[in-house]
Amino acid sequence: MLVSALLTSVGINTGLCFLFFILYSVLRRQPSNYEVYIPRQVAEGKSNKRSYFNLERLIPSPGWVKKAWKLSEEELLSISGLDAVVFMRIIIFSLRVFAFAGVIGVFILLPVNCTGDQLEDIDFVDFSNNSLDVFTISNVNNGSNRLWVHFCAVYVVTIFVCFLLYYEYKNVSSKRIAYFYASKPQPHQFTILVRSIPVSAGSSVSDSVERFFREYHPSTYLCHMVIRRTNKLRNLINDTKKLYRRLIHMQADPAQQKYKRNSRFGLFGRKVDLVDQYEKRLEDLEEDVRLGQSEVSLAGEEVRAAFVSFNSRYAAATAFHLQQGINPTQWLTEEAPPPDDVYWPFFSSSFMRRWISRLVVIVSCILLTILFLIPVLVVQGLTNLSQLEVWFPFLKSILTLTFVSQVITGYLPSLILQLFLKIVPPIMEFLSSLQGYISHSAIERSACNKVLWFTIWNIFFATVFSGSVLYQASIILDPKNIPAKLGVAVPAQASFFIAYVVTSGWTSTSSELFRIIPFIWSLMKRPFVRDTDEEFEVPSIPYHRDIPRILFFGLLGITYFFLAPLILPFLLIYLCLAYIIFRNQFLNVYAPKYETAGKFWPIVHNSMIFSLVLMHCIAVGIFTVKKLSLAPTLIVPLPILTLLFNEYCRKRFLPMFVAYSAETLIKKDREDQNDPSMSEFLDRLVTAYQDPALMPIQYSVHSDGLNSPLISSAEV
Amino acid sequence: MLVSALLTSVGINTGLCFLFFILYSVLRRQPSNYEVYIPRQVAEGKSNKRSYFNLERLIPSPGWVKKAWKLSEEELLSISGLDAVVFMRIIIFSLRVFAFAGVIGVFILLPVNCTGDQLEDIDFVDFSNNSLDVFTISNVNNGSNRLWVHFCAVYVVTIFVCFLLYYEYKNVSSKRIAYFYASKPQPHQFTILVRSIPVSAGSSVSDSVERFFREYHPSTYLCHMVIRRTNKLRNLINDTKKLYRRLIHMQADPAQQKYKRNSRFGLFGRKVDLVDQYEKRLEDLEEDVRLGQSEVSLAGEEVRAAFVSFNSRYAAATAFHLQQGINPTQWLTEEAPPPDDVYWPFFSSSFMRRWISRLVVIVSCILLTILFLIPVLVVQGLTNLSQLEVWFPFLKSILTLTFVSQVITGYLPSLILQLFLKIVPPIMEFLSSLQGYISHSAIERSACNKVLWFTIWNIFFATVFSGSVLYQASIILDPKNIPAKLGVAVPAQASFFIAYVVTSGWTSTSSELFRIIPFIWSLMKRPFVRDTDEEFEVPSIPYHRDIPRILFFGLLGITYFFLAPLILPFLLIYLCLAYIIFRNQFLNVYAPKYETAGKFWPIVHNSMIFSLVLMHCIAVGIFTVKKLSLAPTLIVPLPILTLLFNEYCRKRFLPMFVAYSAETLIKKDREDQNDPSMSEFLDRLVTAYQDPALMPIQYSVHSDGLNSPLISSAEV
Repeated sequence: MLVSALLTSVGINTGLCFLFFILYSVLRRQPSNYEVYIPRQVAEGKSNKRSYFNLERLIPSPGWVKKAWKLSEEELLSISGLDAVVFMRIIIFSLRVFAFAGVIGVFILLPVNCTGDQLEDIDFVDFSNNSLDVFTISNVNNGSNRLWVHFCAVYVVTIFVCFLLYYEYKNVSSKRIAYFYASKPQPHQFTILVRSIPVSAGSSVSDSVERFFREYHPSTYLCHMVIRRTNKLRNLINDTKKLYRRLIHMQADPAQQKYKRNSRFGLFGRKVDLVDQYEKRLEDLEEDVRLGQSEVSLAGEEVRAAFVSFNSRYAAATAFHLQQGINPTQWLTEEAPPPDDVYWPFFSSSFMRRWISRLVVIVSCILLTILFLIPVLVVQGLTNLSQLEVWFPFLKSILTLTFVSQVITGYLPSLILQLFLKIVPPIMEFLSSLQGYISHSAIERSACNKVLWFTIWNIFFATVFSGSVLYQASIILDPKNIPAKLGVAVPAQASFFIAYVVTSGWTSTSSELFRIIPFIWSLMKRPFVRDTDEEFEVPSIPYHRDIPRILFFGLLGITYFFLAPLILPFLLIYLCLAYIIFRNQFLNVYAPKYETAGKFWPIVHNSMIFSLVLMHCIAVGIFTVKKLSLAPTLIVPLPILTLLFNEYCRKRFLPMFVAYSAETLIKKDREDQNDPSMSEFLDRLVTAYQDPALMPIQYSVHSDGLNSPLISSAEV
Repeated sequence: MLVSALLTSVGINTGLCFLFFILYSVLRRQPSNYEVYIPRQVAEGKSNKRSYFNLERLIPSPGWVKKAWKLSEEELLSISGLDAVVFMRIIIFSLRVFAFAGVIGVFILLPVNCTGDQLEDIDFVDFSNNSLDVFTISNVNNGSNRLWVHFCAVYVVTIFVCFLLYYEYKNVSSKRIAYFYASKPQPHQFTILVRSIPVSAGSSVSDSVERFFREYHPSTYLCHMVIRRTNKLRNLINDTKKLYRRLIHMQADPAQQKYKRNSRFGLFGRKVDLVDQYEKRLEDLEEDVRLGQSEVSLAGEEVRAAFVSFNSRYAAATAFHLQQGINPTQWLTEEAPPPDDVYWPFFSSSFMRRWISRLVVIVSCILLTILFLIPVLVVQGLTNLSQLEVWFPFLKSILTLTFVSQVITGYLPSLILQLFLKIVPPIMEFLSSLQGYISHSAIERSACNKVLWFTIWNIFFATVFSGSVLYQASIILDPKNIPAKLGVAVPAQASFFIAYVVTSGWTSTSSELFRIIPFIWSLMKRPFVRDTDEEFEVPSIPYHRDIPRILFFGLLGITYFFLAPLILPFLLIYLCLAYIIFRNQFLNVYAPKYETAGKFWPIVHNSMIFSLVLMHCIAVGIFTVKKLSLAPTLIVPLPILTLLFNEYCRKRFLPMFVAYSAETLIKKDREDQNDPSMSEFLDRLVTAYQDPALMPIQYSVHSDGLNSPLISSAEV
């Protein structure tokens, strides 16, 4: 890739970023866009929508940057919970790592790389086409002692990253404990989910649970809630809701009412009042729902699972940690998620169906990974213009234009990849939801992992190996030579990944600020919807989309910092953008949907350790290729020590992210003993885990009036 | 290998077996051998040693066979504990598997193999040298439809083995639960071991433990015993014991007394009473020990570990299962072993030393595995006589003798291997003892695993690949072709392994009965030792030696049953021998040293699953080699299903071997509530985990007399 192609890409993206920033600064102050840009404040009633005109509104102001910058960690914790704080810690952690690596890279490694003349010697002809490679390690002469500078940089940065990883893990885990101590009593702290409940003939699941826990935990058992199969009911309720919305719509818009009546009965139709008809149908549906609810409650629609509550956190933890029944496949216990985080549809499916869907998920993930190689290959074709000309000869005339070829090689490949990547997180979330997790947070965590590994395999490895050794399919079947292959292939793709950081990183972050899709969506529906208040919902941040992206840039930074230090300034700009923009979004846009209290951090830690070890592998390869005889051997202790460090961290911190210790639980329980509101709280536990599909529903006008319906839940 | 060579081996070993049987039948009835052949009954005082002569004693009688045969499982349980029952179940399980496989192999597969003529076609010249191969699958014509018989046999036997595995796992785990219910209250059920106890400045470990458990388990905590560093003390006590034994010896044998005195002081020496001198030294040593004991008890020789006892099994289990402290690397809990099973030296070493020794153990295991290849290669050289002649040309004249060459090819290789294998279990036990296990039983279980995998790698794989593809070092680096390589190499070694079963299996089992080494040892020491009563100790069965052996024969049987069904009759004879002989040994020889309540069974299960999957790999290979086009693909579901079955068993049964369920523990606790002796038992818990090195010691004559010394323990 030419420097000019990279500059084209940087230019386009910088322009886009500025455009988004200015547009955002203007548009966010228009009351009609409040729901897009400050939905949190709208939901909290802080912003009124009175739209008197004001010239000031049209002048872009950077005030929001100052606000976002000033936000303290305590404030963030109080408004968006610990998960948001942990998310920001990922960005801060990356900023620290790459500021340090950036200083080393730009001020030490880059001059060393530039002073070499390896590339001039060997392929002077090709030089102009690969001018970016002058700044990479490829330009250092083979066997040159200057490579020891790179060697030292690898050691120093690894030690620094490990030190920071330890510090952050400690920081996050202590935050987690502090968060637990500061939390109010919550139902899921006192509750476990029991599955595979054995039922003797003639008795119900509920009896069985009651008998078992009364027998073995008489002093601590409080109550239980057996789960029922409610998928049919859930469909009915959804139908009811849809009908209700339509009715609201019709009542609000008489024109539409009339139009519909005419179209339906034509000239001959009686003048039936359609609203009345709809109301009748709504009442019928509600009756059906009520019938269904009582049916489900009475008959044998019980699932062999129940939420069992205890009178203390310690008792719940004890029941969760010990195997309850003699048969280890019965009375399976796990920690209960918070009531509004429960993924109810999961319980409706049978064991076999869940088992099969898990298999299907695995197969789908593999298929998705394979199919995704196709766009990656096409993108790779674009960076090698000559190959593109071979494939599509008719393009030859267009490709000779400098600007076109620069856009195609510099900007288009990353853009295409990025568009394809956009659809991956929702697919992965859908797959995870089939996999049998009982809570939304667990589904998103699993999806986060899936997206991360998908990105690493499909973007990093597919790009690296398709660009240079695609035709050597034997690479995976030859594990001994992987470092050497990496050493050749990875530096060759440096310029692509620099462009990728600029395109995918910069633009996606600024479009995150601008919220393109919600904005377009709100523009589109504005003419049709008069008042959307009752459908308005504050969005939550999709961690499974954003965390893997940041982590992937972390991987790129760590693997390329000593190969092509030029990537680091671009990465730092991306991280600074992300820092400001996400703080702003937490403040104005996203409301927390659930709270895992920092359970995303182990994913971050693992990903960083993987990046480090991968970087060491590449270092072994590149030092072998560069004929620095002793260096590959001297690198070997580094991955071993890194993995030992990881092992220590797994022992030292990971258990704190899985469950709370006896000490913590007992302390917290004792604190509550003197709290007079505890007995009331414990009484409320009985109904805390009620399936929303079984809650009373009332939309129709006859009893309560249309304007205050008892909407059951958004999660059905 | 020729049929005649195999017959030579069978002949020699049958002869040896008969010899051992007859010798045993005679020798066991001689009172002087009682301590070798019926030590249990001697220890229980059932057999007196009055040696009036009796002609009947010289006539061999098979009465012991009848007695061993009639022994019921309940009796075995009562005299040797559940571990012995589980050990016998391994043999019974193998007998069932190979009886079934034997019927299929001998009556169906063997005729099919014999009717083929593949070998006659291809290498008629070599035929006489490989006549045993006529009975193997190699003789079936390539692509012949008869191979589908083998295919079906693989499926049928796999299903049968899985069915039996399930049945036995269920059987053993229910026995384990029943054993627990039937057990009397034992200290280790109420106790946990706590490690990494944090200590604040100025307070002792004991204070720290007391404070923590009084704070967080006030209603269930009973008492604790802090562990102290006693390795120096242990050495002192050992010295004292040695001196005491020498003294006893001298007092009992005046002749030796005089001789020693003379030799020591010569003609000029004063007539010092050596016995007095020794007694003086003994008293001094005892004083030292007492001083050391009080020093260790007072000063800061505390290890940061303690046995903590609770007032119920459930409370102990709760403390064991939950992470206690906020920091997961502190207050580490694990289940306590029974007091006499504790491996005390472990606690004396520091954390760093333990960590380093663990690394040393890993390296040693690898080294041992590599070094052991040398005898295996030599042995393989012996089976290929022609190669031997190349290596040692001077042997050529001897090797031309038929009998010599038959002994060398048929008998010697297995014998050498077996002798080398004899030293492996003690080495592995020693290595495991360095690895940081806190109980003898855990050390033996770990050693059992080590010996098993060592045997499989070094005997099975080394033999298979060195015999045929030794020079193809690339095999491990080419995972895709492993089945094909196995398919070629494994059948080629069939005759060696048949000989191995006969030599190693038959002879080792009958020498187990005859107890060669203890017998020779007792013969040797008889002239020197007058009365060994005080040193006499009932031996315990070395499970880590015998279980891997049986399991390895199981692996051989399962992998070879469809390749060379001829192995099965020999295997069945071995198993029948083992069945009778080990029952006899449990009855007469071995006393249980510890009780793991069947924790060895999961090792058996895993080994069997591994054997099955290995057999499937070989089957894929052999069907590929034999050009049965569809069969290799149709075998593939079998290992997948087997592994799924294993996964199910891990979920269904394995947890029962790790810890008892809440249900079990609470039931057992409630039973004890009405037992009046419980309070007394709980009082005794305070001293149950006293380090034997800290118990009062008294050998010297002055206080108590020589004949009733307070011997501290055998475990020092």
